[in-house]
Amino acid sequence: MAFWLNGDVREDRAAIHIADRGFLLGDGVFETVLMVDGRPAFFSAHIRRMRAGAAALGIEARLDENVLADAVISLAARNEASAGKAWARLTLTRGVGPRGLAFVKGEWSPTLLISVNRYAAPLDHGPAAVIVSKHVRNEHSITARWKTLNYLDNIMAKEEATVAGADDAIMLNSARRVACASSSNIFLVRGETLKTPPLEEGAMPGVVRGVVLEEAQKAGIETELAPVDSKELFASALFLTNSLIGLRPAAKAGGRAPGGADMAKIAELKSRYEAAMKADLDAFGAAR
Amino acid sequence: MAFWLNGDVREDRAAIHIADRGFLLGDGVFETVLMVDGRPAFFSAHIRRMRAGAAALGIEARLDENVLADAVISLAARNEASAGKAWARLTLTRGVGPRGLAFVKGEWSPTLLISVNRYAAPLDHGPAAVIVSKHVRNEHSITARWKTLNYLDNIMAKEEATVAGADDAIMLNSARRVACASSSNIFLVRGETLKTPPLEEGAMPGVVRGVVLEEAQKAGIETELAPVDSKELFASALFLTNSLIGLRPAAKAGGRAPGGADMAKIAELKSRYEAAMKADLDAFGAAR
Repeated sequence: MAFWLNGDVREDRAAIHIADRGFLLGDGVFETVLMVDGRPAFFSAHIRRMRAGAAALGIEARLDENVLADAVISLAARNEASAGKAWARLTLTRGVGPRGLAFVKGEWSPTLLISVNRYAAPLDHGPAAVIVSKHVRNEHSITARWKTLNYLDNIMAKEEATVAGADDAIMLNSARRVACASSSNIFLVRGETLKTPPLEEGAMPGVVRGVVLEEAQKAGIETELAPVDSKELFASALFLTNSLIGLRPAAKAGGRAPGGADMAKIAELKSRYEAAMKADLDAFGAAR
Repeated sequence: MAFWLNGDVREDRAAIHIADRGFLLGDGVFETVLMVDGRPAFFSAHIRRMRAGAAALGIEARLDENVLADAVISLAARNEASAGKAWARLTLTRGVGPRGLAFVKGEWSPTLLISVNRYAAPLDHGPAAVIVSKHVRNEHSITARWKTLNYLDNIMAKEEATVAGADDAIMLNSARRVACASSSNIFLVRGETLKTPPLEEGAMPGVVRGVVLEEAQKAGIETELAPVDSKELFASALFLTNSLIGLRPAAKAGGRAPGGADMAKIAELKSRYEAAMKADLDAFGAAR
């Protein structure tokens, strides 16, 4: 499998420097991008988020969207991932430097790694079963605000779900309110209202989350960005969003399975989301 | 510079697999060990902590203390770091695996990287000037309890100190009480009492912290493991501890510089700590 490292296409996968701060300290950000038939979905939004995250961390990287688009497209072709679904992972770190936590802006040469692999999308097994994790998300942390390489709390929450026989775990913030799931955002549907925690609550600024909120507003669905008490998870239909799964209905163990009207609302949003993705992919193709 | 990777001594530093979970997700733990004249200080305590951290993360690694001791000693010799001070870094990750957060215990082959470099110990510039960081430490997180690769909050706190012209930043937990500094533990000296936050407050279980607490008890110094309000930082003499700096007096901007009696107490603890380290190094040498 070919990959892209700092501008070079390479094959030998033992490639990251042993003093890379991404490896030693989790000092970086990443993006996971869905690719459909060789084109990346919502690529501009992903690159925008990566740029903002890098800026927040003080990583000075030139992230040229066209160069990166060329990279994912050519890797998809090289790795026989141009038909159907694939996933691209872009990983940006502060790069290689001396020991210690300190860094001096401008004196570092960041590392940018891109890999593309075919994505065997899971069959639709119906709603995801979710538990509430004991692993607390720090809504005050830069690691909650951006998609950083510090994923241990999420990894442990996911493991907690696996051990419990569930599909995913919902993480509460330090005020014990709902933030997001281990690798997705969470939405609550109750009657005609769509609700999701605001970023300040520790919700990841998900690309699909943004698209769903925009599409809901276009469709005249009332959207509420407000703190979510964990008790509300019992009383609402739920769905999860991320770039690879899109929208997936969810049900809390002991909670309410999405009913007919709620499922119809979720299906409507899913359909609108998929249309928005198709439009984005078409626009991406037309621009090249 | 030679390094050690999964049992092999190597020279080519582009060596970490692009799909290593340490690089992609910060999924691992590490230790930084002071070496003096070719011997690692408090090596057993470091390996014990690494084992406990790995177990907490569900990383199944055989960490044979003798094998690892051989590795750091031979790397020190090879890298001309056997005289004077050096630092060894041991980094353990979950290893290389498929995409996603999930892992299955026992099906992973962890990555263990060891590097040893000469340590140009900084000159003693007197007390470290510390600020209180706006970056909040999540005392509920596994990343606060163990020395994991998730270091972004600490990196940003250190950067905040640098920008403010200070040496280090003290991090408060989500209850806004004192946890530790960006890469050290913090102790407060007031009269005859020594105080430091307990681990539950988000304090890293520092190796030097443990030695200092033990030595203080041996010396009959009253030690208090209790929550520390940030206001107490103004009213107390402070010192920081970590494996590389040992004990370093600190003063909060606007706070009280350590006075004569407090400095004497800190000097006494420092002297006891250094004697304990010498005893540990001697015991290490005698056992080989």
